Amino acid sequence: MSYFDNVRQVTPYVPGEQPVVTGDLIKLNTNENPYPPSPKVKDAVEALPIDEMRLYPNTTAAPLAEALAAYHGLRPEQVFVGVGSDDVLATCFLTFFAGKDPVLFPDITYYFYDVWAELYRIPYERIPLDENFRIVPDDYRKKNGGIVIANPNAPTSIGEPMDFIEGIVKDHPDSVVIVDEAYIDYGGETSLPLLQKYKNLVIVRTFSKSRSFAGMRVGYAMADSKLIEALNSVKFSINSYTMNCTAIAYGVASVQDEPYFREMIAKIVKTRDKTAERLASLGFTCLPSQANFLFATHETVPAQEIFTYLKTKNIYVRFFNKPRIDNYLRITIGTDEQMDRLIETLSGMLENR
Amino acid sequence: MSYFDNVRQVTPYVPGEQPVVTGDLIKLNTNENPYPPSPKVKDAVEALPIDEMRLYPNTTAAPLAEALAAYHGLRPEQVFVGVGSDDVLATCFLTFFAGKDPVLFPDITYYFYDVWAELYRIPYERIPLDENFRIVPDDYRKKNGGIVIANPNAPTSIGEPMDFIEGIVKDHPDSVVIVDEAYIDYGGETSLPLLQKYKNLVIVRTFSKSRSFAGMRVGYAMADSKLIEALNSVKFSINSYTMNCTAIAYGVASVQDEPYFREMIAKIVKTRDKTAERLASLGFTCLPSQANFLFATHETVPAQEIFTYLKTKNIYVRFFNKPRIDNYLRITIGTDEQMDRLIETLSGMLENR
Repeated sequence: MSYFDNVRQVTPYVPGEQPVVTGDLIKLNTNENPYPPSPKVKDAVEALPIDEMRLYPNTTAAPLAEALAAYHGLRPEQVFVGVGSDDVLATCFLTFFAGKDPVLFPDITYYFYDVWAELYRIPYERIPLDENFRIVPDDYRKKNGGIVIANPNAPTSIGEPMDFIEGIVKDHPDSVVIVDEAYIDYGGETSLPLLQKYKNLVIVRTFSKSRSFAGMRVGYAMADSKLIEALNSVKFSINSYTMNCTAIAYGVASVQDEPYFREMIAKIVKTRDKTAERLASLGFTCLPSQANFLFATHETVPAQEIFTYLKTKNIYVRFFNKPRIDNYLRITIGTDEQMDRLIETLSGMLENR
Repeated sequence: MSYFDNVRQVTPYVPGEQPVVTGDLIKLNTNENPYPPSPKVKDAVEALPIDEMRLYPNTTAAPLAEALAAYHGLRPEQVFVGVGSDDVLATCFLTFFAGKDPVLFPDITYYFYDVWAELYRIPYERIPLDENFRIVPDDYRKKNGGIVIANPNAPTSIGEPMDFIEGIVKDHPDSVVIVDEAYIDYGGETSLPLLQKYKNLVIVRTFSKSRSFAGMRVGYAMADSKLIEALNSVKFSINSYTMNCTAIAYGVASVQDEPYFREMIAKIVKTRDKTAERLASLGFTCLPSQANFLFATHETVPAQEIFTYLKTKNIYVRFFNKPRIDNYLRITIGTDEQMDRLIETLSGMLENR
């Protein structure tokens, strides 16, 4: 017997590398936004009195939940705010999946789903995507303790329309269905209107991508108030105060600058579509993207070789050494200038082979 | 069968009321610091480029872990940083208490310990404090899956010396012993030197009290690197990035201003000791405090009556409607001016009875 015998053994999620961004390093590996947050955030930084830091923040981040509710046309009781969508999703798994039947999600999707299920000892089953990396709703028609769909999916970048999601939600009235809309702002169709009709639907969003707030850790869930109340009960059983005063105040400022938000999204979508064309001319195939990244495979050169080469040129993209996707690269959309350097570097590599 | 059947049912912790501090309201109910954080934090706010918010923060809050390690004479691998000590303690419970034997802690202590044990389905047993609200180490000599001691204890305010803690740590080489030092800076004796000798000891601290950072959500654990590694594995199974860029940068600034830190602590200790004397002259008995609060009972007037009266006068203190302590008030130490008004208000109440 040793004090270490009672220590929980887990295999944690391994996030993308976070090299320090200096000099000519181009970081296209963790789907961050290449543009800074709204200038209104800068104003909020200057407006926050440091004396406020000595007081506990609002337990439910109410000012931010209210701003988000107003933005999405919901009631504040329908919004739960957390420390990035990872915190929100982890809390959803712990709260909504306390049953004995397996929770279902695609075999190729956000890898954290497995990790949370393992940590909280939730039974789960991975349902294979079809050969075109699409979700097959019929395959989910089995006894389950919940369903999780990332839409658009990651790392595939493929989105499905609201009707498609509605089919799944309708098929499973006895399951909580979580739709992870981390990448929805880049051209996907949101399932938000379905919240009017379905009480078993939870939609999760993040500020990390489209709001340039990866460093501020803000995410949220939207659902019927009964599910949000259950989420809050679990949250209050872990940490009464998760959102610090800066995340709340700066988050509100971000939500209130819609023109800037739309402008930055339009820029990235334009850069993405141009980049996909240029990659095609170099012999790459990109899956049809509704996200701020491309999932690309080359006709002759193995993904891992390209990944390694790009790194020597100080360009970081993401490579997953996993079944079915180990010949693909996930490439975050950066600025036009960054994409120019990516394309030039790839051209140089492919010419010299 | 309904989608709600799989939802986890829990009884969450109920934090102290958080009224909006305006006008003449005096908030002495959640042990916040009445003084603002170090002026160096203000400099850090101005120095942080908002462009940094678009990038994911350091996964282990390394700059802050390093600053804390240097401050305490430890190696960075011995420090784990979290979203307030509640996040740190919850992660400790989940990580270190995965065994089948009950985790032991006092019957009167921080009420979150029960809540985490319940949430994570950890067996536990509450060991009664003696009639003077002291911990009896002999009572812990039984089979257990871990031990948690708050030192100084809350809400009693009583601290024990390092030798006392060492006795418990030594008695239980096969258990992880967590010492929650949330209030240690106000005159208690830290158990930090014991980390040199015992690999089963974990010491947890918070920035919420002595560093005036309740609103910033920063806490940390110190232990042997093997336990810290286990904590990080569980943390990486929940949320890769918990500390936002402001908490990291402002936290470092706080740690680097030792003179201000010492000055504010000395002020509060002085105010506390004066307040205890004045309360005694009004017929109160305060337990001997090594914290930034007093635990006080009146010789004739019930605690709940005083609590309710003070609230009508816009002074918030904490009352726990719990066995053994329901005739006590927990009173946070505020500024001298706030304590003057408290004493005047109490005098007025007691005179008019």
